[in-house]
Amino acid sequence: MSLGAEFDLIGRYFGGPFAGLRGEALASGLSVGLGDDGAVLDPIPTGEQLVVAADMLVEGRHYFTEVDPSSLGHKCLAVNLSDLAAMGARPLGFTLSIGIREIRPDWLSAFSRGLLALAERTACPLLGGDTVRVGETAPEVFSISILGLVPSGQALRRSGLQVGDELWVSGTLGDGAQAVRQRRPWPRLNWPEPRLALGQRLRGLASAAIDISDGLSSELEHLRQQSSAALGQPLQCRVRLSALQGCLGELLREAQAHGHLSLSQALRLAAESGDEYEMLFGAPVGAHLAIDALSTELGLPLTCIGQVRALSAPHLPVLDWHDESGVSIAPDAIPGASFDHFRPA
Amino acid sequence: MSLGAEFDLIGRYFGGPFAGLRGEALASGLSVGLGDDGAVLDPIPTGEQLVVAADMLVEGRHYFTEVDPSSLGHKCLAVNLSDLAAMGARPLGFTLSIGIREIRPDWLSAFSRGLLALAERTACPLLGGDTVRVGETAPEVFSISILGLVPSGQALRRSGLQVGDELWVSGTLGDGAQAVRQRRPWPRLNWPEPRLALGQRLRGLASAAIDISDGLSSELEHLRQQSSAALGQPLQCRVRLSALQGCLGELLREAQAHGHLSLSQALRLAAESGDEYEMLFGAPVGAHLAIDALSTELGLPLTCIGQVRALSAPHLPVLDWHDESGVSIAPDAIPGASFDHFRPA
Repeated sequence: MSLGAEFDLIGRYFGGPFAGLRGEALASGLSVGLGDDGAVLDPIPTGEQLVVAADMLVEGRHYFTEVDPSSLGHKCLAVNLSDLAAMGARPLGFTLSIGIREIRPDWLSAFSRGLLALAERTACPLLGGDTVRVGETAPEVFSISILGLVPSGQALRRSGLQVGDELWVSGTLGDGAQAVRQRRPWPRLNWPEPRLALGQRLRGLASAAIDISDGLSSELEHLRQQSSAALGQPLQCRVRLSALQGCLGELLREAQAHGHLSLSQALRLAAESGDEYEMLFGAPVGAHLAIDALSTELGLPLTCIGQVRALSAPHLPVLDWHDESGVSIAPDAIPGASFDHFRPA
Repeated sequence: MSLGAEFDLIGRYFGGPFAGLRGEALASGLSVGLGDDGAVLDPIPTGEQLVVAADMLVEGRHYFTEVDPSSLGHKCLAVNLSDLAAMGARPLGFTLSIGIREIRPDWLSAFSRGLLALAERTACPLLGGDTVRVGETAPEVFSISILGLVPSGQALRRSGLQVGDELWVSGTLGDGAQAVRQRRPWPRLNWPEPRLALGQRLRGLASAAIDISDGLSSELEHLRQQSSAALGQPLQCRVRLSALQGCLGELLREAQAHGHLSLSQALRLAAESGDEYEMLFGAPVGAHLAIDALSTELGLPLTCIGQVRALSAPHLPVLDWHDESGVSIAPDAIPGASFDHFRPA
């Protein structure tokens, strides 16, 4: 069924956007592409490992029917590229399987524009895929599987945190959640920027990394749990709220300035907001200056928000949010309810 | 979102089927697997090229809600493996993105049993994926992207047919359509066997190959069109109906023997039946004996059903079905209506 008649139809119908991939711009490294049972890639360079990830977006679940199709195309690929970024990998290409109710030329054309603009900018060609017509009332589905390359043995993992490592986040946090609260269009929510350059530069600097798709607190706990398991020793992640305050997004700062949000509300939103696609990573203290320099070089804020400790007693919180003086904030005070899920490992 | 909480949940819930993939049986070649942002594979051997394909199955479109979940798991992977077979590739691994309405332990357990049994048998590990909950009335969706390896430059393609090549099919055809007509359960329809060994052995023998997912006549036309384009010369595929008769499936032969089907009806079904997942390939006449020997060795019927010619005049049918004496059968007589789609290129 791969690349069935309907996919060809789409390519033909638009006379360009999908079919354009058969051209040279995106097809470097591709021996056989769209239109065969599969794509055949040029040999992988010696000393590199393949990285594979997959993410699926479903209408009504990950986006609203009224979404700008161009931003949806961008986002479908961006969330997958963000996984590569978190592994320190560079893009190699992707497959796209689409379940759609009908062929709407304008919509698909805009979708492919958003998708392919990002594909071209990140040198990540469309390698193949599948198109299926779903029922008239069914949600539409966009499923991507992405391939990347990383120098052998250098992939960033979730499980590498060590006692004493500092915890860092890129960019700012919380505007995704705040935009939804304010029912306000906010470009970054729909046009997330995968941190590919950062991810690749963090190889050899970071001890562990993950992208923030489900919220900072949730991703911190992923890093902590998987690193604890790898170490065979329970870890505690301590986040300094004054540092997290420095990462508050523009919308949050604005709402705070106008008195619409308290500081603790803003911090809670920053800790829980999903769909951010910023990077969360750990690094040894000795890498601090190099990471500061990298931030300057990339023109991207990188903020040290806390540190990893050994969990000294099982009753202590595994994620510890503390103020400037080091006093822990009660888990039910800041950032909030979702922390109930996190019991000591 | 990759490998989100729900996927972990599934792994944990079943205490085995998905989580089992973290074990050693399927994880050879896998440095970092399920549970990270992506999987990191061992370096690709020098001299091999990566092959990528994708296929998505949607409830109500590709299978009925009442399907045996174990056979559905098998089929989701089998149709993707069939694409690798058609490229002459051997499996490397796959990603699986699932959109489900709810977590039904028994159903998912059976699904994963069918999926993983085939994954293990074909040495094709699950590398990662995504799980999404779709709405209560939404069709469920299973999206796989598959990776394979092929010696550099040896991938089988659709576009390699040459004038004079013989056309071959593996196994038998038509039982898929006949089972649906008879509303009769038919294992092969639900448990297709990807022709992986055949595909790999055809490297160096076959000039072009494709798997029969949409029906012989449709796939023949894919080979013909793409090969004509590559040659810059329109080709004609001539199929000898007496040879095709030798490929009729068991159900078709039985129905014929009982007088429920005429020969021409049976041939039409063999030519149009989809979901067969047999291989259709072309090969030079000089490879005929080697292919016969391969058939014996693999214990798999390989039948020469016709030959490729130059299309000598534009008004001639591009697919020409002829009897033993070489007389063409009118396109509207055998095998039927769908041939109206095929106008000369």
